[in-house]
Amino acid sequence: MTLRISIIGFGAVGQGVSEILMRANNRHPIRVVAIVDSRGAVVDAGGVDLADALQRKRSAGTVATADATGMTALDVIENVDHEIVVEATPTDITTGGIGLTHIRRAFECGRHVVTSNKGPLVVKYRELCELARANGLHFRFEATVGGAMPIINLSREVLAGNRILATEGVLNGTCNYILTRMDDEGVSYEHALGEAQELGIAEADPTADVDGIDTAAKIVILANSLFGMDVGYDDVDVTGITKITPEAFKLAKESGHTIKLIGEVQENRDSQDNRLRVAPKMVPRNHPLNIGGTFNLASIQTELAGRITIGGIGAGSIETASAILSDILWIAGVSGE
Amino acid sequence: MTLRISIIGFGAVGQGVSEILMRANNRHPIRVVAIVDSRGAVVDAGGVDLADALQRKRSAGTVATADATGMTALDVIENVDHEIVVEATPTDITTGGIGLTHIRRAFECGRHVVTSNKGPLVVKYRELCELARANGLHFRFEATVGGAMPIINLSREVLAGNRILATEGVLNGTCNYILTRMDDEGVSYEHALGEAQELGIAEADPTADVDGIDTAAKIVILANSLFGMDVGYDDVDVTGITKITPEAFKLAKESGHTIKLIGEVQENRDSQDNRLRVAPKMVPRNHPLNIGGTFNLASIQTELAGRITIGGIGAGSIETASAILSDILWIAGVSGE
Repeated sequence: MTLRISIIGFGAVGQGVSEILMRANNRHPIRVVAIVDSRGAVVDAGGVDLADALQRKRSAGTVATADATGMTALDVIENVDHEIVVEATPTDITTGGIGLTHIRRAFECGRHVVTSNKGPLVVKYRELCELARANGLHFRFEATVGGAMPIINLSREVLAGNRILATEGVLNGTCNYILTRMDDEGVSYEHALGEAQELGIAEADPTADVDGIDTAAKIVILANSLFGMDVGYDDVDVTGITKITPEAFKLAKESGHTIKLIGEVQENRDSQDNRLRVAPKMVPRNHPLNIGGTFNLASIQTELAGRITIGGIGAGSIETASAILSDILWIAGVSGE
Repeated sequence: MTLRISIIGFGAVGQGVSEILMRANNRHPIRVVAIVDSRGAVVDAGGVDLADALQRKRSAGTVATADATGMTALDVIENVDHEIVVEATPTDITTGGIGLTHIRRAFECGRHVVTSNKGPLVVKYRELCELARANGLHFRFEATVGGAMPIINLSREVLAGNRILATEGVLNGTCNYILTRMDDEGVSYEHALGEAQELGIAEADPTADVDGIDTAAKIVILANSLFGMDVGYDDVDVTGITKITPEAFKLAKESGHTIKLIGEVQENRDSQDNRLRVAPKMVPRNHPLNIGGTFNLASIQTELAGRITIGGIGAGSIETASAILSDILWIAGVSGE
């Protein structure tokens, strides 16, 4: 059975999904029946021409066709026949943003949701899961944490039966790039940040990354989805990397350590005093968390298997889209057979 | 629905499975209806008393009860009603050993198989998969490669849709312990081996580990199961670690490297000249494969997601049993709903 999908939001991730499906050349049982961005949509029940759509976006700045200019995401979600909504609009971790509205409506309209959008999960994880369950639908979000690093599906499926006690990880590629450069070259934070901005690894306004906000959002998602907690952004104790000096790296080095921005979730079943934290930490040089560049890595402490580590490229259009594809194929597998 | 299982072979892994199920206290939908070792069996359709069985094995050297002394694995597989055979007898990678007979018979009798036994997969992977398929049964073997490191199920399920181009890994904890000690302390191979033997990390006859045989068996299993190859032990080019000197480590160190025993599979679609190799390799100090002690780690090169790494404890009764449990629960999930 072919699953029909819509792509809501046509930035790096939405375009990555189109790119992958185009390259796969119908190898997967997936047909894109609508793509929408902020200016309009393209809709084709027989399958959107993905090469055309990507071309139009690049040249005209919108995916919209003349007949569907002004058509909104909600129009598509409500009125186009399809099974899966791929929600990939820009994230807003304070309110959940427009993504939250899209996901709610998708479930109300009987459509599964696959998303890379952290905001809705940080703000309303439990409500969205309950809405999906009440409607007999799937809600998958591997792409929200760590790009191509498959921590969520690994933990929930492969490690089933093996209780997770704690997780800690390097979950932000921009911060890790900056810290790796500071460690390797002895340069200042400002210098390494400038370098990262030149390379397009850090944004012009790097606040969300360097202040630990992005990592904290991922910690909230892991806490809710892997540990069954019901927490929000304010439950995380957050310190960023902007105050780290070359001297701190020198001291760390002298004792065989480096400094990494570590996000952690630790469950305390007895006291309900769970630990959710993002902060720079000393990490021994031969520790699995001492990975370089923009790679992400998480260490999962399990009851039976001890420590399991999982790593992958933390960002990138195709890499993040590959996580979305694996979620879509999972739904195809469980609901299509 | 409760799944009934038999445990064939009651060494470290079989006892680990019993231990885990006992601790889980009926949390899982699994009932052990028979356990067999080389001297006999215990059979109870209502559920074997696992604490008693473990106690009997420790004190009497066999799990057998008086009425089932001399009962064989084949008797259990053929005549006891159950859904899943857990095959955990000692491995023989030359002939497949008795485990091969057990697995064939299990499929012929309509039972799913979960195993930690490398031999049958190294010798007859394709035949066993076809036999399982022909009978509509599941064949799961996460525990055969890397103990608790979930490389097989990660690759086959979580990374579905994402073609795997190559895999390389540190897949033998004994070798890695010896090499880590040689690197850390500058000691000779013989010295580090002696230390590992004292700690019970290396066996009295360490040949299978230090000559790379165990790693090569795992490479065969990965090549067949993740890459769809049809290869055997003789297709792997194998070099062990016994010739590595402290001087080699010194030279490696001077250029920022260490030495690891690396197993690798690389597919060459054009020439059919696939590369299957086990050999000591120079690894940069900040490379993900530079992990210490008995940890195992694999790096998986994928088409869409780039490099994914997965690590876990490579051996141990409970750790390996946890991989078996995840396979059993997977079968419970797909066949029980």
